[in-house]
Amino acid sequence: MSRKSPVIVDLKFDPAVVAKALSTAFADREVINVADPATAGRDLAGIDYAIVWNPDPDLFSRARDLKVIFSGGAGVDKILSMAALPEVPVVRFVDPSLTTRMSEWIVLQCLTHLRQVSAYARQQRDRLWHELSQPAAEDITVGVMGLGILGRDAVEKLRVMGFNVIGWSRTKKIIDGVETYDTAGLETFLGRTDFLVGLLPLTPDTTGIFNARLFAGLRQGGALGKPVFINAGRGRSQVETDLIAALNAGVLGAASLDVFEQEPLSPESPIWAMDNVVLTPHAAAASDERALFRYVESQIRQFEQDGSLGNLVDRTVGY
Amino acid sequence: MSRKSPVIVDLKFDPAVVAKALSTAFADREVINVADPATAGRDLAGIDYAIVWNPDPDLFSRARDLKVIFSGGAGVDKILSMAALPEVPVVRFVDPSLTTRMSEWIVLQCLTHLRQVSAYARQQRDRLWHELSQPAAEDITVGVMGLGILGRDAVEKLRVMGFNVIGWSRTKKIIDGVETYDTAGLETFLGRTDFLVGLLPLTPDTTGIFNARLFAGLRQGGALGKPVFINAGRGRSQVETDLIAALNAGVLGAASLDVFEQEPLSPESPIWAMDNVVLTPHAAAASDERALFRYVESQIRQFEQDGSLGNLVDRTVGY
Repeated sequence: MSRKSPVIVDLKFDPAVVAKALSTAFADREVINVADPATAGRDLAGIDYAIVWNPDPDLFSRARDLKVIFSGGAGVDKILSMAALPEVPVVRFVDPSLTTRMSEWIVLQCLTHLRQVSAYARQQRDRLWHELSQPAAEDITVGVMGLGILGRDAVEKLRVMGFNVIGWSRTKKIIDGVETYDTAGLETFLGRTDFLVGLLPLTPDTTGIFNARLFAGLRQGGALGKPVFINAGRGRSQVETDLIAALNAGVLGAASLDVFEQEPLSPESPIWAMDNVVLTPHAAAASDERALFRYVESQIRQFEQDGSLGNLVDRTVGY
Repeated sequence: MSRKSPVIVDLKFDPAVVAKALSTAFADREVINVADPATAGRDLAGIDYAIVWNPDPDLFSRARDLKVIFSGGAGVDKILSMAALPEVPVVRFVDPSLTTRMSEWIVLQCLTHLRQVSAYARQQRDRLWHELSQPAAEDITVGVMGLGILGRDAVEKLRVMGFNVIGWSRTKKIIDGVETYDTAGLETFLGRTDFLVGLLPLTPDTTGIFNARLFAGLRQGGALGKPVFINAGRGRSQVETDLIAALNAGVLGAASLDVFEQEPLSPESPIWAMDNVVLTPHAAAASDERALFRYVESQIRQFEQDGSLGNLVDRTVGY
């Protein structure tokens, strides 16, 4: 039996967490963690696999014989935009843990706005006992943009919670019991939407898609009065000057944002201080390192058996 | 056909909302809304039905021929404790809208604590971009006390969101795929529970059940470190001096409270200002008045056909 190829790890996550998860992973082959100073200057030619998230700019020139690149996250826009990316298969990270966490965050944000959490928090601060008029989840239409694995899971869980849910994707997707729209139906979709959930990959088509014109198309006068924007996709899909203006002008009633045009978000951004915005630091669905390594182990096992790979990125569409 | 009995309405809800919902209800019979000053002094003898929530103390002596009393909410402890309550059937309000709203609130609170909302809110205030270590829902065991219609719906939805869920009730209940405990198993149940959800009716057995001894029995050192107490049942089930002490001592890490020993909660209560407490003013699952009247209409229709009634209160157990 030929010696198994090592696997290169270049993940700009918490180094201690990566190291700990690696200690019990890839028992059958060597791991080269480029975060380890001992690997500096090592020849990476002849190595088949790399697992990457924000890799070093010179990684692909050092590891010039890669057969497969595994993304450390669900989004691959950053990897695809690297000039030095070799023409080899890129595999997205798809994992129940990632999907579950994303839906936790999406459902939390929808319930937070439905149940008027910020108004009740103000009343608590003011020691005011006052029950607000409370629409039910079924009175709110949540429009989910992006119907991949994450979007479909969010749709299903929002429906279980009682929300009325509709969906949008670039090309028409069929989901049992859910009205869905494609590019041609965007205006109709927006006009029905009270809570807009963004779960879109970043592509040329989706860059800046959440702009003044789109916000103006959302339904006004729904059960909570004004529409709400919730983005857990990619920050560069949103035009933040338009978003801030829409929140200030009351075109949007509130927002929950996990992603931003520039990350980390600048301490100077006015978004931090907006009391109708819930902000999290790209933390909606962090990859679980142990789950990531188990996933890559299983993909490599399959690849070495029959050459097949799952969840391959289609570079022509960008995800 | 004999003339249909009027229905008496004595609901201490928002009077305008009650009046509006009544305008389209009970088309086939007279409604006597005791909130209407014109009904003062009217003879209520010979009337069969009353729908009540915190009724006037003299209502049952005025309406001395009632055949059925309909509660305006799911909890009937206040009605059962009225000295003048006649020996006639009392019907609880059970409605999908009430159940859905309660589960919205429960799932919202569990996700709020799981996803460390208050820590992220502090970071937002401090303009700090920092991702916290984030356990997944499956790492948290939610223990639900009270497995009636509300409890079972909450269990189901918490499981969909990925939580590990166990249940407790006075007498053993079987729920497919969920480990359940009864009175004899309370200690074991508590020792496994990270988030304790209270959905108990108020009875002599449950008065003061959430006390120092119970809080001390909850699991310490779970995925989020300390246990969390979430109560949407009845306020008099909790001993607030014990609760405040447990929160201050770190026996409990946090709490979400919709109910209190005395409601409205006194402006003097220290609970308002505790930054590890989410407080709502008994608003988790307000009865939807239209749904309530539709429910009573359908119960009366059945009762007048064959004398049967659903969701009858068992006075020997108190719910």
